[in-house]
Amino acid sequence: MDVDRLDMMTTPAALVDLDRVDANLRRVAAYTRQHGLRWRPHTKTHKTPELARLQLAAGAQGVTVATVREAEVMATVCDDVLLAYPPVGEDRLTRLMALPPQVRLTVALDSGEALGMLDRAARMAGRTVGVLVELDLGMRRVGVQSPEDAIALAGNVAFGSGLEYRGITFYAGHLRLPQEKLGSAMREQSERLATFIEALTDSGLRPGTVSGGSTPTLWRSHDVTGLTEIRPGINIFNDRNAVSVGACAWDECAYSVLATVVSTTVPGQAVIDAGSKALAKEEGFTDTGVYGALLGKPEVLVRGLSEEHGLLDLSNTSWRPYVGERVRVVPNHACASVNLHDTLHLLRQGAWAGQYAITARGW
Amino acid sequence: MDVDRLDMMTTPAALVDLDRVDANLRRVAAYTRQHGLRWRPHTKTHKTPELARLQLAAGAQGVTVATVREAEVMATVCDDVLLAYPPVGEDRLTRLMALPPQVRLTVALDSGEALGMLDRAARMAGRTVGVLVELDLGMRRVGVQSPEDAIALAGNVAFGSGLEYRGITFYAGHLRLPQEKLGSAMREQSERLATFIEALTDSGLRPGTVSGGSTPTLWRSHDVTGLTEIRPGINIFNDRNAVSVGACAWDECAYSVLATVVSTTVPGQAVIDAGSKALAKEEGFTDTGVYGALLGKPEVLVRGLSEEHGLLDLSNTSWRPYVGERVRVVPNHACASVNLHDTLHLLRQGAWAGQYAITARGW
Repeated sequence: MDVDRLDMMTTPAALVDLDRVDANLRRVAAYTRQHGLRWRPHTKTHKTPELARLQLAAGAQGVTVATVREAEVMATVCDDVLLAYPPVGEDRLTRLMALPPQVRLTVALDSGEALGMLDRAARMAGRTVGVLVELDLGMRRVGVQSPEDAIALAGNVAFGSGLEYRGITFYAGHLRLPQEKLGSAMREQSERLATFIEALTDSGLRPGTVSGGSTPTLWRSHDVTGLTEIRPGINIFNDRNAVSVGACAWDECAYSVLATVVSTTVPGQAVIDAGSKALAKEEGFTDTGVYGALLGKPEVLVRGLSEEHGLLDLSNTSWRPYVGERVRVVPNHACASVNLHDTLHLLRQGAWAGQYAITARGW
Repeated sequence: MDVDRLDMMTTPAALVDLDRVDANLRRVAAYTRQHGLRWRPHTKTHKTPELARLQLAAGAQGVTVATVREAEVMATVCDDVLLAYPPVGEDRLTRLMALPPQVRLTVALDSGEALGMLDRAARMAGRTVGVLVELDLGMRRVGVQSPEDAIALAGNVAFGSGLEYRGITFYAGHLRLPQEKLGSAMREQSERLATFIEALTDSGLRPGTVSGGSTPTLWRSHDVTGLTEIRPGINIFNDRNAVSVGACAWDECAYSVLATVVSTTVPGQAVIDAGSKALAKEEGFTDTGVYGALLGKPEVLVRGLSEEHGLLDLSNTSWRPYVGERVRVVPNHACASVNLHDTLHLLRQGAWAGQYAITARGW
């Protein structure tokens, strides 16, 4: 291990505390075991096959991906891949069908068009592809709107000769509430989900898999009746947004961006070299105009971002950094920040302990 | 040229209309000639040496960069490089000093600490580095706050044996006004700048270079008395923000992101596969919650962004896209979007005509 390396490396740089990663994975593994849920982490957060391998070793039963590129990379370490994204377009389908034959592939979709294209591609490739019908349970992004639409689509899947109907999926990305307020929202979601499950079951289309789950709702997943599988992504790293809704504590944040203070001329402020190009310009769940906080000094907020500048607000601290001082920032949204870097630098007991290339970026 | 390639390529993809680029460069070249201004475009917008070469061929006298990586890449096509960023940190300085010896290097800085480090590095490398003292004219990001601070810093530069005092620089990124309201803001800025120029001149530190300029203020640069050089970046491509303040017209937008419609289940909305990972989540200058508009259909706005989803608001159009349809989005902020892609696909007369690798990303 190389303590000084953190002082010498080019900033901004993405850091991952592997001790915290281990603890985060143990915690979610224990939770899913306790509640009889399957765990299929979303790998878009880290985009790194070595970290998917850690999740599988900790008890994950498969992985979730958002892009074909992520599927291609994660297929090198896992034989059970869910593409939680409509597989629309020739290029997507061609590359999906070219995944290694031993990969059990499941795809989420919400339209007859996507279904038709996938069925044709699967038949031409001589491949069986599982399908989950995507439901909209209130996020209003993708997903069928009614139990009737779900039945129609699931029925068509069951008739598609290259396809296998495996169940339903949803994403409650709109539930960004403090843990104490989450209970009633989760029960409401559970009731809405039940209408879909009942209608499908009554039509002979009982969903074998009911897949949901996000990091903010992670620890209340057992409130959703009928859920069989969860797909938290951010949980491996956590971030300021996860802290803000109580889904983790500050000392469970495993991801940070190492930065250097480059200017202190404006009173009450220090400028670091981690801007939107390193942290990602993502609003907070519970505030606006704040993009991150210092690791170990959460009262120091990143209040403004240009591409190469992060503005630290010093109004709540007596700390006055010097030009050249190094700091670590926990961004609001870890996934979006990771996507901006080529490399994850790994820490063990606080010291540099290696690096992983972030190989599943792009599309 | 290959018309069909646009229909087949993986989406999202970054497109550059080279005919529009040519016209944009001709327009700014004519403006700077007319007003006797030097033109040093900021290459952070495109991060692509081939496009810097086009700018130089059109009449640019040098380039501006924000990172050492950009300096390294642009030094392969240009011998006059301004690093408009404080060169703080060992790694930055070591790599800067390793730029090819024929590169005339100038650096902007605002602190004695940055100055001391740079002087030491320059002397050790046996290199002369030019310095521009960075002023804060109201943006409150970086820059010395008063004429007295500017004199103190410029005086120290003049005494640094590895350095050469070349003048002053500022960035008015806070002036994001419609062209018709820009006049008085520019005059105010001009007056504030004059106090710095006068004080420096009275102290025997007359700035040879006075460098400013952004795309929103580009066409009023001649209102700023004493300005010798402008550094617009976005102007080569333009974007929705540049349109929103009247710095360009829609048909001067040369950059767009090709995307595929992947879902239309939510009424009044269509989902495309260009999300924050392709467009960048940057608020508009003149509105919030909007992240881009369709090329050729500016009434269709991108109203929500997840990492892989862009939500098109169909409330102002009778157009109803089908799943699989391809569209082109002009993002709010071109630079931030370009930084998310590996490749710029080039168009001539609307058809695919080649591609450039975006090689100056990262740090």
